[in-house]
Amino acid sequence: MQNLKGIGASAGIAIAKSYRLEEPELKIEKREVADKEAEKLRLDDALQTSKAELEKIKEHANRELGADKADIFAAHLLVLSDPELIKPIKDKIEQEATNAEFALKETADMFVSMFEAMDNEYMRERAADIRDVTKRVIAHLLGVQIPNPSLISEEVIIIAEDLTPSDTAQLNRQYVKGFTTNIGGRTSHSAIMARSMEIPAVVGTKQATSSIENGVTVIVDGIDGDVIIDPSEEVIARYKAKQENYEVQKTEWAKLVNEPTVSKDGHHVELAANIGTPEDVKGVLENGGEGVGLYRTEFLYMGRDQLPTEEEQFQSYKAVLERMEGKPVVVRTLDIGGDKELPYLNLPKEMNPFLGFRAIRLCLEEQEIFRTQLRALLKASPYGNLKIMFPMIATLQEFREAKAVLLEEKEKLTSAGVQVSDKIEIGIMVEIPSTAVLADQFAKEVDFFSIGTNDLIQYTMAADRMNERVSYLYQPYNPAILRLITLVIEAAHKEGKWAGMCGEMAGDSIAIPILLGLGLDEFSMSATSILPARTQIKGLSKEEAQSFKETILSMSTTEEVVSFVKETFSIN
Amino acid sequence: MQNLKGIGASAGIAIAKSYRLEEPELKIEKREVADKEAEKLRLDDALQTSKAELEKIKEHANRELGADKADIFAAHLLVLSDPELIKPIKDKIEQEATNAEFALKETADMFVSMFEAMDNEYMRERAADIRDVTKRVIAHLLGVQIPNPSLISEEVIIIAEDLTPSDTAQLNRQYVKGFTTNIGGRTSHSAIMARSMEIPAVVGTKQATSSIENGVTVIVDGIDGDVIIDPSEEVIARYKAKQENYEVQKTEWAKLVNEPTVSKDGHHVELAANIGTPEDVKGVLENGGEGVGLYRTEFLYMGRDQLPTEEEQFQSYKAVLERMEGKPVVVRTLDIGGDKELPYLNLPKEMNPFLGFRAIRLCLEEQEIFRTQLRALLKASPYGNLKIMFPMIATLQEFREAKAVLLEEKEKLTSAGVQVSDKIEIGIMVEIPSTAVLADQFAKEVDFFSIGTNDLIQYTMAADRMNERVSYLYQPYNPAILRLITLVIEAAHKEGKWAGMCGEMAGDSIAIPILLGLGLDEFSMSATSILPARTQIKGLSKEEAQSFKETILSMSTTEEVVSFVKETFSIN
Repeated sequence: MQNLKGIGASAGIAIAKSYRLEEPELKIEKREVADKEAEKLRLDDALQTSKAELEKIKEHANRELGADKADIFAAHLLVLSDPELIKPIKDKIEQEATNAEFALKETADMFVSMFEAMDNEYMRERAADIRDVTKRVIAHLLGVQIPNPSLISEEVIIIAEDLTPSDTAQLNRQYVKGFTTNIGGRTSHSAIMARSMEIPAVVGTKQATSSIENGVTVIVDGIDGDVIIDPSEEVIARYKAKQENYEVQKTEWAKLVNEPTVSKDGHHVELAANIGTPEDVKGVLENGGEGVGLYRTEFLYMGRDQLPTEEEQFQSYKAVLERMEGKPVVVRTLDIGGDKELPYLNLPKEMNPFLGFRAIRLCLEEQEIFRTQLRALLKASPYGNLKIMFPMIATLQEFREAKAVLLEEKEKLTSAGVQVSDKIEIGIMVEIPSTAVLADQFAKEVDFFSIGTNDLIQYTMAADRMNERVSYLYQPYNPAILRLITLVIEAAHKEGKWAGMCGEMAGDSIAIPILLGLGLDEFSMSATSILPARTQIKGLSKEEAQSFKETILSMSTTEEVVSFVKETFSIN
Repeated sequence: MQNLKGIGASAGIAIAKSYRLEEPELKIEKREVADKEAEKLRLDDALQTSKAELEKIKEHANRELGADKADIFAAHLLVLSDPELIKPIKDKIEQEATNAEFALKETADMFVSMFEAMDNEYMRERAADIRDVTKRVIAHLLGVQIPNPSLISEEVIIIAEDLTPSDTAQLNRQYVKGFTTNIGGRTSHSAIMARSMEIPAVVGTKQATSSIENGVTVIVDGIDGDVIIDPSEEVIARYKAKQENYEVQKTEWAKLVNEPTVSKDGHHVELAANIGTPEDVKGVLENGGEGVGLYRTEFLYMGRDQLPTEEEQFQSYKAVLERMEGKPVVVRTLDIGGDKELPYLNLPKEMNPFLGFRAIRLCLEEQEIFRTQLRALLKASPYGNLKIMFPMIATLQEFREAKAVLLEEKEKLTSAGVQVSDKIEIGIMVEIPSTAVLADQFAKEVDFFSIGTNDLIQYTMAADRMNERVSYLYQPYNPAILRLITLVIEAAHKEGKWAGMCGEMAGDSIAIPILLGLGLDEFSMSATSILPARTQIKGLSKEEAQSFKETILSMSTTEEVVSFVKETFSIN
């Protein structure tokens, strides 16, 4: 028996035999070809076969995972039809009289290293796409069988270095009970896939493939991030109990889908979801979301080579508003820059992008981009309950400017006879310390606050949340953070406004009793966290939670807060 | 008459004829040489002549500017003796049978671009050194006269693209009345030199060399950053009055050198200086500093290829303590990382260095570096009034760890019979928002606070202070910043501790009445700002300043605060 520790990427317990998903070795040698035309035809054949396979995988993904996830394969199919990739390969065959697999590999490698060097999340993903797709074509050219997880016909736990999008999409939920990988984090592709497939998964174990042979019994505990290899009967029994418990819990959660979120002593709070695309609304409703607390509009701008048109944006916003059927939808205006770049905007490289020209700072300067988005939002407003939120507001001056631009566009539209809702609330993200400290002044002018804890914590502690060397300073429960949150909530209530939270913290079981006690009105989180959070809140007394407020706020360290909350509210 | 706007780098008014300090054009052609040995000798000759010149400049600098500034030329002399630079040049002559100037240029360019690419302040300075030095050698090889500002024999204002260290060191204070350059900022080399020479200077005008011909009358107003070209008689008269005023003011200031800093209503505050080396103490005492509020020990670690030994550090700390003759000296422990790198530590490149692994974060992990510094400080402590301050403290946990390490080293030293002062105060920089917010908890455990506004502002506003695109967010007078400062001062006083400030803000004329009203105990600034600040404080009533506290803290924008303070305290 051996234990591996990783990151619980998708909750649940799976117990089954291991199945190593290994990459075949693709050995490519450079050969001179006599008939260049025949070689090009051989390339075309392999491209066609690969496309046909990808079409099948795409259908499978569409059926099992939804249109949103199947889009990845549409992107892969596009790569295989991209003349910018195919032409240089054929040129290479023509000019160097070389074999197709060599020409393909050389060309693809060039694009991959070019894209990877770009230090840009989106381009790096494109690099991964090209790598994934060309592997398939090369396998066909070499006549090598590539693994086909959809052929699995017994219950297994997949063991892999990492899972590519095509791997994950081929997994058959009937047989694949869980998986564990060497690399990846909570937001890696495989983790997101696992959650949407509801397969337990532990990623980032570093040594899954080196420690787990084929066919041994493995337990994947996606709740706590544990992988147990070759467990004893006793351990299996314990985990089966844990699994049953979890299933019971899930059934309990499911009962709450259509219930409001009410504490034991009868106080209502709103549990909303963070989304990135209109397709995500389905998951929000299935998980009983009472609203969308954060619609990240960046995704509309990413993965393309020019800005989205006003019409495209309008359609997306309208779709979300309509599908949410009158429930509140908080749309965050463009938050680009920092770690989220748009290649077509040609933003200058910055020394400290997290402290740089991003979000509202960029929108107030590049006003055409901003105004286009605002017009699309205003036009969509009659289709539901829209609230508009500006990101990265640091000063009241910025908020006043952004609001003035919004009202100007609204005025222009109504003068032109376009219908615009009169009830749009205008609020801000509170993610910069200055804004939290000055919340009382902001509260007089905004309609609502939404606390963005991911950034608020990183700025308040002066620690890049992506930098492992200072990750010990990413402390959601540091009393300084809790005091800033308190300032924001109290300032909102004093002016009769509401305060929400849309960072990771809102769905955390330790944070929930604290935030309930501080009087937070709206908690926005991943859709799959909503039902567990609702369950937890139903068991809490808000008044009891409030009674600990002063005690917690006068503590001096994170450790003190965490141990007090765990003990007081019996959280493991 | 034409006006240029730049950055006032050194206060004062100068009126004189312009003198363009132009670089000779050094045209280098590649030639084949028949006698390689003769060519190498020619190189050696030029190196020798250049060294002899540099020795003279160094002496001039030593006499006029002090040993500290003359060190730059010692560094230049080292470059000319560096076998790592000279050998490749000779190899090139040998292997390519090329002329010495070409071989020198090619080799130097390679080093320059290598060092510049390093994205490291220190290495970029080395690149500038090499460029400066090789220009001199090439001129000698080409038989071209390079400008020699020390030959100037009438009163002039120097006009230049930029001034290199060797240019500035050759300036004769008798004749050079001021200068203006196209490039540079308040902390550029030429600006620092101008302040230590007390020559009025305006840098960063962008167009000084393109707008100002030789021999025209020019006014340099280093107080307000203005340059007036070919002024009318009336304008000259106005500036002469301003100049006299400034001289009167300086005489007034000088009278206060040995006076304590007391407000109109009899309250004392301490005006201290920020220093980087033991040599800076002279300027502190000449300007009436009541202490050293910030001794930046980084300079001991920079400009070298290995860590300074305990003995070297001990000597520096002892020198500062002794020269300050019992006045308080606050030494900040190593604050490296961020924009200050040490090449020999091989720190990994970070995406957001200002939010990264630096200062105390690094010291708590690389404890040998930290402990060596602490031992040197403890050993120096009997020689004066030492206070030790930890930088970048974000959590109480970090402070407790750092203090424990310090006490451990102290215990070891006293057990070994080494004399250590018993009165060393242990404090922290408050430059991270979390620490300001939690100041009440910190105040129970630290002996003092020193607010580092440069960083505190950048983190609180989430805006990189080096990034021009977000420079509008660097707002010292934002009410959020003032509230955090208030929290820190009140927390200190409640526990009977003192609170100082060692950022740029402490010496600012708008900030001073606010900070006096908030109750700040110690103001630490550039030495040359001390007497103006003392003069200002003598004219202020602390109780009146206090009466505006609530009004200012309940304002909502920087603009409101600035206009209120300017009007209330009649500041231009």
